[in-house]
Parts: sequence; structure tokens; C-alpha cells
Amino acid sequence: MAELSEKAGVPVATIKYYLREGLLPAGERTSPNQAKYDEGHVQRIKLIRALMDVGGLSLATVGEVLAAVDAGKESPHRILGIAQQGITSTRQAVDEESREWALATVRDLAERRDWPCKEDDDLVIQALVGVLCAIREVGHGWYLDKLDDYAEIADRTADLDLEGIAGIESLERIIEVAVVETVLGDRLLSVLRRLAQQRASKAYFARQAVDGG
Amino acid sequence: MAELSEKAGVPVATIKYYLREGLLPAGERTSPNQAKYDEGHVQRIKLIRALMDVGGLSLATVGEVLAAVDAGKESPHRILGIAQQGITSTRQAVDEESREWALATVRDLAERRDWPCKEDDDLVIQALVGVLCAIREVGHGWYLDKLDDYAEIADRTADLDLEGIAGIESLERIIEVAVVETVLGDRLLSVLRRLAQQRASKAYFARQAVDGG
Repeated sequence: MAELSEKAGVPVATIKYYLREGLLPAGERTSPNQAKYDEGHVQRIKLIRALMDVGGLSLATVGEVLAAVDAGKESPHRILGIAQQGITSTRQAVDEESREWALATVRDLAERRDWPCKEDDDLVIQALVGVLCAIREVGHGWYLDKLDDYAEIADRTADLDLEGIAGIESLERIIEVAVVETVLGDRLLSVLRRLAQQRASKAYFARQAVDGG
Repeated sequence: MAELSEKAGVPVATIKYYLREGLLPAGERTSPNQAKYDEGHVQRIKLIRALMDVGGLSLATVGEVLAAVDAGKESPHRILGIAQQGITSTRQAVDEESREWALATVRDLAERRDWPCKEDDDLVIQALVGVLCAIREVGHGWYLDKLDDYAEIADRTADLDLEGIAGIESLERIIEVAVVETVLGDRLLSVLRRLAQQRASKAYFARQAVDGG
């Protein structure tokens, strides 16, 4: 287990915890006190770590993702969908009228962009409903005039994200990469955007100062 | 004050709180129990609300932004910078070696993209250092090969963001819009990206299934 710990880059105590919770299959027993672990165990540990530590998924959702991987009945697209639900937070309660308005806005957008329109209770749809309502609620509904422009940027980002998993054979590795890309990528893009805003703001107000004087 | 409350869309108790904390200037007293408020008060309340409720800025940082607005000595670009610091969270402690590596990566990137490179202790730079270290720390350093592609997307987003403030005369309104765009825009982009990922993933695995069989 010390070797597995080193290869996977997690402490032995963590491996024992994963085994106890049934997330990691037991190794092949070679003596009463020894078990052999293979590359599959290393990959599984990396996936669990990405789901829990990076994605912040609950133990239950991690179990759900791994069970789907092991059952081998669901398509990779669907299993990625389960993981994606786990890393999406919906923060806001909305009233019925706002919810209807936001759902209609989402459906129209999905149709224009040829996005798969999931059920209304899908967590990603719920999250989008929450954000749209929050924007309208603070009196900045004008911002949604640019919804299609931001959706265009989201499409470019998703195409770039997909390059990260294209060609990978292992389903476990695909999910691991997708979670890391999505969660840390959100934070990365958010910060890069602020630096780019500084560039845009500096140039804009410099032009204004010249025009004004 | 009831009229101001209605126009600005916040409860009277909130207005009293802003007055007490010195965020909102007192109205023009017309009788011992009456004061007159103007459009400037409405705009100021909307800005405070955006900074506190949307941006999550502390009372101290809100005070700092408003003082800079009132002093009229700093450029709009600089005041936007103060607000931006307030809405940027740095989450991670990093060791000295990682910090040096990340700072060098940031400086190289800023040079390639012609981004203004601020001081190392700038909160946005610190946040980027934290994200870069987090990505490397979970063993996904390969992701940073795509740093320039994501930076390109950030630049497009920032140009789109700037359209939201272009042409606005009031500095207070500019800051209000910038905060709402940045904070709620982060959440909006994050969710739109997930929907776009579903589109990309569905198409990719459908192609794979055809190629495979």
C-alpha cells in the first residue's frame, strides 16, 4: 500500500478511507497482510481525488459516478453528465413567475444555439435559472441582451475543453480531466478575465482622456 | 425617505443603515423631520447595493471605493481597480517555490498578451498564482499548455464586458455595471459553459460510437 500511496500521490490513510467507503476495490491478496494493487487502482484514486478534492462532490455522488463507471451500461456522455451535476451549485430560490420567465429564456437560447435542452429539474438548468433571476432582480436585465454573445464565448470554451479529453481511452481518466478542467478552469477563466478587463479598461479610459482633452 | 426607498428599490431600514455608516450623504434638510433626496442618492444606493450584495465587498472596501469616487482624484480605471480587488478572492496558500514559478508564468503570459502587469501583491495576480498552483498541485500541469487559449477567450470576454460600460458618463454607474457584469457574469459564463460542454460531449461521443462500430 506504501507503493500505491507513492504512485497515486495520496497518504496511506486516505487510501484506507477510500477502501473502507467502498470507493476503491480491494487489492489482490498475496498474503494475510499483503495485497497487490495495479495501475487501475492508481487511476481510480486519482479520479476519486479529482471528484472529491477538486470537484467538491459528496461521498454519495462520488459513489454514484463510480458505480456508473463500473456498471459500464451508461454512455460516457451520460456519466460525464452525472459528474457535472455534482460540480454545479444552485444558490438561489426563485419565485414561480421568475422561474417561468427564466426557463423560457433558457429554452429559447438552447434552441438558437442547438444545445441539448435537458429537463427543467436538471441542476445545470436550475443554476442558469438562478443566475438569470439574480441578474434581473438587481435591476440589470439589460445584461441579458448580451446573453447570446456570452453563450458564443461559452461554446468556444467548451470546444477548447473538449480538446482536453479527446483521444483519451480510459473513461476514468476522461472524467478526471473533465472535472479538473471544469472546476479549476472556471477559477482560471474568472481570474484571466479580470486581468483582461484591466487591459480593456486601461485602453478605454486612456482613449477617453485623449478625446476629452 | 419613503420615495427614495421606492425609487432605489431598497427598504427604508437599509437606507438608514447606509446613512449611519456614512456611505450615503445626508439629504438636504427641509424641516426638522424631513430631508430631500435627489437622483444622486438613488444612483449611490444602487452602487452600494451592487458592491455589497452582488460583489460581497466588505463595508470597509465599499467605503474605500466611494471615498475614491467622491475625491475625484483617481482615474476611473484606478477606481475600477479598487472595486475589482474587492470582488476577487484568493483561496490558497502556496509555498515559495510554487509562487516563484507561478509569478514567472503570469509575467510571461502578461507580456505575450500585452496585459498590464501589476505588482506581485495585487490581489488579481495573487488569485491567478493560487489557481496555477492548484492546477499543478493536483497533477494536471498539462492544462497550462492551453493557458494562452483560455487567455484569448478571457480577452474576448473582457472586450464584451467593456461594451457594457462604454458611453456611460456617470462614474458611479460605470462601477455598478462593472461589478454586476463581473460577479454575475462569472456565474453566468460558468453555467453557460456547462451547457455548451453537454453539446460538445454529446457530439464527440456520438462520433466515437459511429467510428467505433
